[in-house]
Amino acid sequence: MHNPKLQLLVHGENIANTTVALTYPGVKLVKVNKVENPNYLFLDLTVAPTAKAGKFPINFMVNGKKILTYSYELKNRDKSAGRIQGVTNKDFIYLLMPDRFSNGDKSNDVVQGLTETALNRDSMYYRHGGDIQGVINHLDYLKDLGITTVWMTPEVENDMPQASYHGYAVTDHYKIDPRFGTNALYKKYVEIAHAKGLKVIKDVVHNHIGTHHWFYKDLPMKNWLNQWPKYTQTSYRDQTLMDIHASAADRKQMLDGWFVPTMPDLNQRNPYVQNYLTQNHIWWIEYAGIDGLRLDTYGYNDPVYMADWALKVQAEFPHLSVFGETLVTAVANQAFFTGGNTVNRGFDTHLQGITDATLKDAIYEGINGKNGWVDGINRLYATLAHDFLYKNPNTNCIFLDNHDLSRFYSMVGEDFDKYKMGMSILLTMRGIPQMYYGTEILMKNFSNPDGLIRSDFPGGWEGDKKDKFVADGRTNKENEAFNFVKTLASFRRNSIALQTGKLMQFVPQDDLYVYFRYNTEPKGTVMVIINNTEKEKILNTDRFAERTAGITAAKNVITGENINFQNIKVPAKTTLVLELR
Amino acid sequence: MHNPKLQLLVHGENIANTTVALTYPGVKLVKVNKVENPNYLFLDLTVAPTAKAGKFPINFMVNGKKILTYSYELKNRDKSAGRIQGVTNKDFIYLLMPDRFSNGDKSNDVVQGLTETALNRDSMYYRHGGDIQGVINHLDYLKDLGITTVWMTPEVENDMPQASYHGYAVTDHYKIDPRFGTNALYKKYVEIAHAKGLKVIKDVVHNHIGTHHWFYKDLPMKNWLNQWPKYTQTSYRDQTLMDIHASAADRKQMLDGWFVPTMPDLNQRNPYVQNYLTQNHIWWIEYAGIDGLRLDTYGYNDPVYMADWALKVQAEFPHLSVFGETLVTAVANQAFFTGGNTVNRGFDTHLQGITDATLKDAIYEGINGKNGWVDGINRLYATLAHDFLYKNPNTNCIFLDNHDLSRFYSMVGEDFDKYKMGMSILLTMRGIPQMYYGTEILMKNFSNPDGLIRSDFPGGWEGDKKDKFVADGRTNKENEAFNFVKTLASFRRNSIALQTGKLMQFVPQDDLYVYFRYNTEPKGTVMVIINNTEKEKILNTDRFAERTAGITAAKNVITGENINFQNIKVPAKTTLVLELR
Repeated sequence: MHNPKLQLLVHGENIANTTVALTYPGVKLVKVNKVENPNYLFLDLTVAPTAKAGKFPINFMVNGKKILTYSYELKNRDKSAGRIQGVTNKDFIYLLMPDRFSNGDKSNDVVQGLTETALNRDSMYYRHGGDIQGVINHLDYLKDLGITTVWMTPEVENDMPQASYHGYAVTDHYKIDPRFGTNALYKKYVEIAHAKGLKVIKDVVHNHIGTHHWFYKDLPMKNWLNQWPKYTQTSYRDQTLMDIHASAADRKQMLDGWFVPTMPDLNQRNPYVQNYLTQNHIWWIEYAGIDGLRLDTYGYNDPVYMADWALKVQAEFPHLSVFGETLVTAVANQAFFTGGNTVNRGFDTHLQGITDATLKDAIYEGINGKNGWVDGINRLYATLAHDFLYKNPNTNCIFLDNHDLSRFYSMVGEDFDKYKMGMSILLTMRGIPQMYYGTEILMKNFSNPDGLIRSDFPGGWEGDKKDKFVADGRTNKENEAFNFVKTLASFRRNSIALQTGKLMQFVPQDDLYVYFRYNTEPKGTVMVIINNTEKEKILNTDRFAERTAGITAAKNVITGENINFQNIKVPAKTTLVLELR
Repeated sequence: MHNPKLQLLVHGENIANTTVALTYPGVKLVKVNKVENPNYLFLDLTVAPTAKAGKFPINFMVNGKKILTYSYELKNRDKSAGRIQGVTNKDFIYLLMPDRFSNGDKSNDVVQGLTETALNRDSMYYRHGGDIQGVINHLDYLKDLGITTVWMTPEVENDMPQASYHGYAVTDHYKIDPRFGTNALYKKYVEIAHAKGLKVIKDVVHNHIGTHHWFYKDLPMKNWLNQWPKYTQTSYRDQTLMDIHASAADRKQMLDGWFVPTMPDLNQRNPYVQNYLTQNHIWWIEYAGIDGLRLDTYGYNDPVYMADWALKVQAEFPHLSVFGETLVTAVANQAFFTGGNTVNRGFDTHLQGITDATLKDAIYEGINGKNGWVDGINRLYATLAHDFLYKNPNTNCIFLDNHDLSRFYSMVGEDFDKYKMGMSILLTMRGIPQMYYGTEILMKNFSNPDGLIRSDFPGGWEGDKKDKFVADGRTNKENEAFNFVKTLASFRRNSIALQTGKLMQFVPQDDLYVYFRYNTEPKGTVMVIINNTEKEKILNTDRFAERTAGITAAKNVITGENINFQNIKVPAKTTLVLELR
């Protein structure tokens, strides 16, 4: 590894009363750290580049007498091809919840010994039995749809009494939840995905754990967590971090307040916590060969630690992609969290990208809104015009919905024209597009109050009445949606303009908003025209000469038709995607 | 002057056919520039620091024979005390339109020889006869109200056929419009203001002129203006300047498109135009001793020129204050135009401040809006939280309305409680507060469609039925408004917290938004609490300990009452301003 230092957390009753010894060529025990709780030791090791793979004993002694031996294994780095590729603007991410996508292994639906053993597909708050094998079983489905990258909500153990199927209440950082599979299966899943030309993103949580985490039940020290005299919730106000007028109390509540009562807030200013989390993430990347990380609740974490984390992880895996969840309401707030921005008063977060919620809002406004100086398509235009605040907006993850938000199809009133408008924008815009599972088959519902946005994918369970993984199981409209996404995704995969091209947008005129994606060498141009009105419009292309000089033909990417390029007919409620040649 | 270079524009029939000579100690004719139009010469001079004040002839000769002599006068710098003081957060600006404030000199109401000689107080689009003498006559009124600084819309000649009473269609850059007065009267006005302890801001226009400007009728060269094959209006889209995805065509239309057909767009990339404008502004500052400039339509000007202009003007007058008009819709867009910001990709505009339209919108939302995650007072909070984008938000000019916008009292539905809420925010917030004339007597009306926002100040004309410059002429409610503004302005002038203090704001809770202005040494604290609901609220002050430690008493600034500081009663629809001690 780039970093020769390693810190081992040792947990055992009164382990602090032992002395520790180990002998292995290249491995040195530098320091044994005792903390408040005698049931913990933190061993500082260095591992020299010359150290060879192999097992060695760590001996714990009392009065010179060995009372415990732990056999620690050093492994070789995995240098296999196709691992840790990174995720870019070229990709198309599919976000799914493993409990809700497909049940590929019924034997792990209920695991005795875990706190929650109920299985109830009729409730959105119980476990449904979906698992990693179910995802493996449908990688070909995703590949056929044109997906290049799979992002699952966290797969690690959430051994909570209830409603932890989502994965964000971690109870063991090093273990895949047995209801989803095993560590070995997870590794295999990544290998199979890679073999199929798919990439994998892992969702990790720095900010909090579940109240049933083993180390919560026996805290190493008081300040392992952000503790409060009485329960204090975060304000969820990202502004407190960037506001030059903010109070220290407000900032502390945002960062140290708990997300919800069942998710204790880790104190990331504690160096032991820092090491634990950072090493855990490095371990998963190296173990499974994953291509990117999505960082949950990014802005709620200690900023200094997160910047240090980013540097350390990137030092080990230069090709890894990372984006942080930022569900904020202005581009400046999002940009504040991104690496290399100039607005964070000299502080570099080293974060490659964020989840672009502001663009999501603007796309909705562009589709659903009534056009006005700052409304409708002008909001979309103006939001993209804020990209000057980023070092690089192309590394943002762009999306229309996710597991926390009302589903896209519902948000456009189940209007299929608007659905197509939105998907066309998602798949032609700058950034890394992410689609939430089931959007391709028009799954719907609102985030409140019933949790139905996390419904099961029909056909993912044996005995499901409909199997929408296959064309025969889908309605005509669902097939139309599926094929629409597939056509765009397929075009995208072969379009140099969409794969690596720049964006150029024009000031909306006559209720039409036009943008181009273009690549100069080799040359490729895609023109996108949004008409969000109820009327067909004719667009004269003279004013786009900067991007259209030399263009002689234009093809509608969806229909394959060649169209009149001088005066383009743009139907009502349409995002027209044209390949120019 | 700091800059020894001077460029004289010489205009005369076929003047380019002459040779030019001058002899004066310290003054050198460096170059005689001929341009497309033979009726112009541009003389490049240098004026050495050793040059003495005095007159000298500039001789124009044909075949060695003098055909014309111009007597040019070099004057001493005016080093009198009290000139060019700068305008800061300590000040309170009163914006007025000289045609509509008071007619102090009936003899100049109609000036023969000018294009428009009609006078009609019944129409908002004709001249009304107000003038600089009218302003001079009411400086004591303004001083009594608590104003520290007067900003008039442009006073220079607008000799247009119609509707140029507003002053932005300049036809002579060096001459006060004769209907407003003379250059000498303007200079006297500034001197009288200074003698009374008031400051003066001049409103200058870089972007355009009126179609009846003498040099428009006989253009020095084609590219003196931004010319288009056919009339092309600006898009008014500031985004085109900052958008990394913008097209060159859109950017050109924004910058070079005309503001309206009667206002030709000056080409500020033309160095002769640059010199003409910059020297004109420097001349006015030095001539009249004004304290600050307001730059009209800032974003429509060539950015490179404007940055150079700022450096040149500041080099001559280091204490001068300058703010630019930016009527944009997001803080990032405003910040982009300000000097020293980090978002403008390494380009420094050197502009001290802008007109803070985004804060204005947010104050309205805070007063009129329904509270929600991003709405109501939370919008106001979040907007101020964006101040991290500025180098210094305190140099922004903050306001609730102006000559282009619906009047504040109308915008709050003529709700006197809301009026008081807004005025209390305006006079306690960071930045330089500006009030539009007549707001203190509850003048109202909407910007569309009838221009009534530019109505005459009642009592400004001899024979007016009501004289609202005096308490007896005002209704009880108008006196209440006047006294409310006066009380706040008077408190402000003596409050170290409001004069030089920092801002600290707290995340809104329970529909209450709280901010502090505070100064550490000497200590001073003002607490402002906004309750925009229809219900009285009780605010427990425990969470504000950072700002309230050691505070033992709180006084309501408006009523003078001492109040219970532990649990503050905040009436419905109220901005409570408390002085803490």
